[in-house]
Amino acid sequence: MLGPRVWSSVRQGLSRGLSRNVGGRASGEGRKVDIAGIYPPLTTPFTATSEVDYGKLEENLQKLGAFPFKGFVVQGSNGEFPFLTSSERLEVVSRVRQAMPKDKLLVAGSGCESTQATVEMTVSMAQVGADVAMVLTPCYYRGRMSSAALIHHYTKVADLSPVPVVLYNVPANTGLDLPVDAVVTLSQHPNIIGIKDSGGDVTRIGLMIHKTRRQDFQVLAGSAGFLLASYAVGAVGGVCALANVLGAQVCQLERLCLTGQWEDAQKLQLRLIEPNTAVSSQPMAAKGWPSFSGDPALRDPGAEESHGLAWLLGGPCRAPLQELSPEEEEELRLDFTNNGWL
Amino acid sequence: MLGPRVWSSVRQGLSRGLSRNVGGRASGEGRKVDIAGIYPPLTTPFTATSEVDYGKLEENLQKLGAFPFKGFVVQGSNGEFPFLTSSERLEVVSRVRQAMPKDKLLVAGSGCESTQATVEMTVSMAQVGADVAMVLTPCYYRGRMSSAALIHHYTKVADLSPVPVVLYNVPANTGLDLPVDAVVTLSQHPNIIGIKDSGGDVTRIGLMIHKTRRQDFQVLAGSAGFLLASYAVGAVGGVCALANVLGAQVCQLERLCLTGQWEDAQKLQLRLIEPNTAVSSQPMAAKGWPSFSGDPALRDPGAEESHGLAWLLGGPCRAPLQELSPEEEEELRLDFTNNGWL
Amino acid sequence: MLGPRVWSSVRQGLSRGLSRNVGGRASGEGRKVDIAGIYPPLTTPFTATSEVDYGKLEENLQKLGAFPFKGFVVQGSNGEFPFLTSSERLEVVSRVRQAMPKDKLLVAGSGCESTQATVEMTVSMAQVGADVAMVLTPCYYRGRMSSAALIHHYTKVADLSPVPVVLYNVPANTGLDLPVDAVVTLSQHPNIIGIKDSGGDVTRIGLMIHKTRRQDFQVLAGSAGFLLASYAVGAVGGVCALANVLGAQVCQLERLCLTGQWEDAQKLQLRLIEPNTAVSSQPMAAKGWPSFSGDPALRDPGAEESHGLAWLLGGPCRAPLQELSPEEEEELRLDFTNNGWL
Amino acid sequence: MLGPRVWSSVRQGLSRGLSRNVGGRASGEGRKVDIAGIYPPLTTPFTATSEVDYGKLEENLQKLGAFPFKGFVVQGSNGEFPFLTSSERLEVVSRVRQAMPKDKLLVAGSGCESTQATVEMTVSMAQVGADVAMVLTPCYYRGRMSSAALIHHYTKVADLSPVPVVLYNVPANTGLDLPVDAVVTLSQHPNIIGIKDSGGDVTRIGLMIHKTRRQDFQVLAGSAGFLLASYAVGAVGGVCALANVLGAQVCQLERLCLTGQWEDAQKLQLRLIEPNTAVSSQPMAAKGWPSFSGDPALRDPGAEESHGLAWLLGGPCRAPLQELSPEEEEELRLDFTNNGWL
Repeated sequence: MLGPRVWSSVRQGLSRGLSRNVGGRASGEGRKVDIAGIYPPLTTPFTATSEVDYGKLEENLQKLGAFPFKGFVVQGSNGEFPFLTSSERLEVVSRVRQAMPKDKLLVAGSGCESTQATVEMTVSMAQVGADVAMVLTPCYYRGRMSSAALIHHYTKVADLSPVPVVLYNVPANTGLDLPVDAVVTLSQHPNIIGIKDSGGDVTRIGLMIHKTRRQDFQVLAGSAGFLLASYAVGAVGGVCALANVLGAQVCQLERLCLTGQWEDAQKLQLRLIEPNTAVSSQPMAAKGWPSFSGDPALRDPGAEESHGLAWLLGGPCRAPLQELSPEEEEELRLDFTNNGWL
Repeated sequence: MLGPRVWSSVRQGLSRGLSRNVGGRASGEGRKVDIAGIYPPLTTPFTATSEVDYGKLEENLQKLGAFPFKGFVVQGSNGEFPFLTSSERLEVVSRVRQAMPKDKLLVAGSGCESTQATVEMTVSMAQVGADVAMVLTPCYYRGRMSSAALIHHYTKVADLSPVPVVLYNVPANTGLDLPVDAVVTLSQHPNIIGIKDSGGDVTRIGLMIHKTRRQDFQVLAGSAGFLLASYAVGAVGGVCALANVLGAQVCQLERLCLTGQWEDAQKLQLRLIEPNTAVSSQPMAAKGWPSFSGDPALRDPGAEESHGLAWLLGGPCRAPLQELSPEEEEELRLDFTNNGWL
Repeated sequence: MLGPRVWSSVRQGLSRGLSRNVGGRASGEGRKVDIAGIYPPLTTPFTATSEVDYGKLEENLQKLGAFPFKGFVVQGSNGEFPFLTSSERLEVVSRVRQAMPKDKLLVAGSGCESTQATVEMTVSMAQVGADVAMVLTPCYYRGRMSSAALIHHYTKVADLSPVPVVLYNVPANTGLDLPVDAVVTLSQHPNIIGIKDSGGDVTRIGLMIHKTRRQDFQVLAGSAGFLLASYAVGAVGGVCALANVLGAQVCQLERLCLTGQWEDAQKLQLRLIEPNTAVSSQPMAAKGWPSFSGDPALRDPGAEESHGLAWLLGGPCRAPLQELSPEEEEELRLDFTNNGWL
Repeated sequence: MLGPRVWSSVRQGLSRGLSRNVGGRASGEGRKVDIAGIYPPLTTPFTATSEVDYGKLEENLQKLGAFPFKGFVVQGSNGEFPFLTSSERLEVVSRVRQAMPKDKLLVAGSGCESTQATVEMTVSMAQVGADVAMVLTPCYYRGRMSSAALIHHYTKVADLSPVPVVLYNVPANTGLDLPVDAVVTLSQHPNIIGIKDSGGDVTRIGLMIHKTRRQDFQVLAGSAGFLLASYAVGAVGGVCALANVLGAQVCQLERLCLTGQWEDAQKLQLRLIEPNTAVSSQPMAAKGWPSFSGDPALRDPGAEESHGLAWLLGGPCRAPLQELSPEEEEELRLDFTNNGWL
């Protein structure tokens, strides 16, 4: 397998060729930020006393900077954003902006339950350096979140956001599936440039791409489990928890898809499904690598070298999320060893 | 129908006879706060520019003070708590404490997603006057909210709360049903005194009552739709959105149940189901009474007099909740007129 | 506890006083069959080679005949009807008719997926002795089972059935909840006299009773878990798997409800919830009593005497239903011992 | 677009090269029937009086014989099999065997609720000409259909079936998802050769393919909506309701996938999603083409010619399935016209 830096030129040559505005700001001339590519949704490291560990966060970014990612997502579901205070949320964005490579995109999850709070968070995140705001569907009153209510919400946020908006649909966490008709309507807003969809329904992903084909609306798969299938129907990239651990492999899958090497892509995709499911089930699994990475003595340098694994620094999740049980850790490890990654 | 003040002595005579500590604080001697009775979950009035309208809130409390409620719940699902800032949440509790009758209980919804934030909110709410904290199940990571995780969460909150804790289960909003085994374990904590269950599964309610019978654990129905059935299996009261509108009737239903007048109770219960469903479906329906109460000119004083309706002051919900459509308003009105309440 | 025969006169005096037509046939004069009371849904015993064991069926009926049931339900979910051939279904009805006491009602589950097959099965079951047909919602095409489709189906069946029809709603098995508006419409059909609802939503049960109050429409609870709550809102009886095992107790609960002894009713109801859940989870649990009744040597004659348990004859279920595991058997036993029934 | 007959040689050259045994019978030497390819799940035409219309069935087969299908599926969900009697089920298989081209596969849905009935139906269908049995998950007791129960069921059926067995998973109808671990276990049975999965979860499809890679287990997509995505992860074909209407297009999509023309495949796939959803929602939509095909005068011969549409003969569904409403018909037509197929 090639080293991570090799691919970036490949992908840049193949992506849609839209140039990102300096600083990621919407120019108002109708040119959209190109978000095509792979993003790890960063985990939020905590200290033993549950403070955000900004030092570890920066170390992780340094490691992840070696891979040909398009950028980084902060405060997706994987980042424990519901457990952060407003000021922590902004501080995380600010620190990531400082620590990450200048040429990559910073996509920040700015969703809150109320429209007003979402607008304020979005504006503040843009001020501290977010290039793009990724906005979760509000969901507590899901029984009342009609297409009309959701269109109203997102339109307001997009109207007032200084940076482009990406819709964020993750029904496993929200219990809500952003209706396709609402997506189609919202795709016509000049400041809404795409969607991250984590639902895994590739028929729905295809339908969104088909019905927004005149809007240059960009669809990102929300997980590595259906990344190949999403590329096959026209998605432009993915936000993949697995990229925190197998960054090189997820980027290689992207390259294989973009260069039309579908047979190799298939082989690689199939080996990534189990590790992906293991890592996506909860933030702890993506961050801690407790028994075999969290404790430096337990890391397998051979695996790091041979497979390009990133041994990130994690630490505990905030409560009420729990540590992995020994059985869960063992299953997690097996999902990697059984597929040849450890 | 009798006036509202008549019943309080009845209910007081019939309730379990546990005396509330002054100020609602846990005495540490193992005596529990008696929460038996009916509570309206207060709506949060907003101004036209979406500020919390504390004046209207106080006016509403004055009106509702006329009914023989056991107390008031603030920041249940009906109170739009996910749309309030932390400081608004505390200010609402503080204002309600000042405006409400001294002899009633103030039950404050203090749930947040993280354990730490929930502890802080609970302590702060107690400091500004809450007698009891009602703590929602954290739900964003519902796939990881095992009994163990939930027991850990609630134990921590109860350990650190200066006021007794009531569990709060509302699966329609959270997509999560607090497991009965977790409830049974938590019922043994000296500072956890009961549960408000809005799920409507009376078999489950009975089972919780049965399995906690040695803990003097108090179960409140979370809706007027199954209030009679809940009393029939041993619940001690209810938190009923409908009590904001038909306060006298909900209290009368309580009295009929407590005095064993089951036939009359049944007749009354059946007439309350449709209005209850209408009012419980979303905060707007409970607060606005837009066409026939929000606009004073449209209120029917005859209905207010003959049925003891409370014409509360509402105003809009915060976005993304929407106004009721004219069709929804008409259905809402029909659910009351068809049952003889307008 | 009183012996089973004592209560029948009580219940007869208290029930609505509608007299059943001889043979249970609809008279055409608008008088409806009174179905108020308790029914065990009979299990279908099989031999070791999976043939229907009619001998055991008749023995079971003899035992169950000692309790003051209103009648017997055959081919509810508990009777493994989806595993019987059409001729077996009819033979079972015929044999039960012969073996059961003459003064009791035979309610036969005649539902099939197609309207035509349901009509034919209903007519045939009436010919071999069914007093009432209990008709399951068709469910394979549940996405297309609108109120209109279901109303059409039941209207056709009721038009052509020589015996009165009871609707049968069991969402746990069908994945379909017969809409209340369809129930209300169907309640106006002269040959549709009630519903057995196994969903356990007592608000829904109350609403159906309220909205059909002018049709003398009779609602039966589909399980002993919410029997008291159902009586409290106006149900007239129940079809309870638990009545196969604790027949005396379920009938006593009925009597306590009908005579307004709500405190005693509550105490009894709460002790029945766990055994009921255990027995209702699958036919095997209701029929086999494998370790402590199926094997005569293991039966506890003391329990039979002191609690009036019916040691029915079961045998295996048909595949793909499996035997209970030893752990499941032990849990089943505990659900009875923990509540004082063994 | 090419005519339908052109592709068969292409597909045959590309498929896995397994040769089908004469008559489709399992040889006992471990060679498996190759099921790779596209299948329309035949609808069952009925007369105005709801008799099976075998004449129309044969006419339809003649029309469909012009397309390069691998074979035909009878009595999938689309064929209204739950509404057929056992003898009708067998007669349909027999008639299709006579009327269809000799070189194509006849895959017959033989699932029943009980294991015994499924075995009998499978054996009988093989006797009247089925090459492969497609066996639905039993589902009425879905709460008890553990992996162990389902493995037991399918093992028994496969042991006794004279023809190879294909598992059939369709959660929208059954409310049950055949667990992947059960599929993996069953893939090792010498007489179980594949699965038709209609759930649409491409991550799951990929996982099944990955975990059965040593068993030469063949996966068929159960719908045209995710056909391309399924090929991309290693599926070998599809059973597509849409193939009844757009047979040429579905086969062309197969060819594009098999020859690695992914860009053209993507374009075609996206245009098929909406027609596919429309046609798959219920049997009526796939069979009737009521306003623009059922009535010959309304057919557009230009569309037939230019797009190679098959104007099948349908007639009504059996009750309780209803006719399409005029609004539904109009939507159905729009789903085709909006994508350029009419």
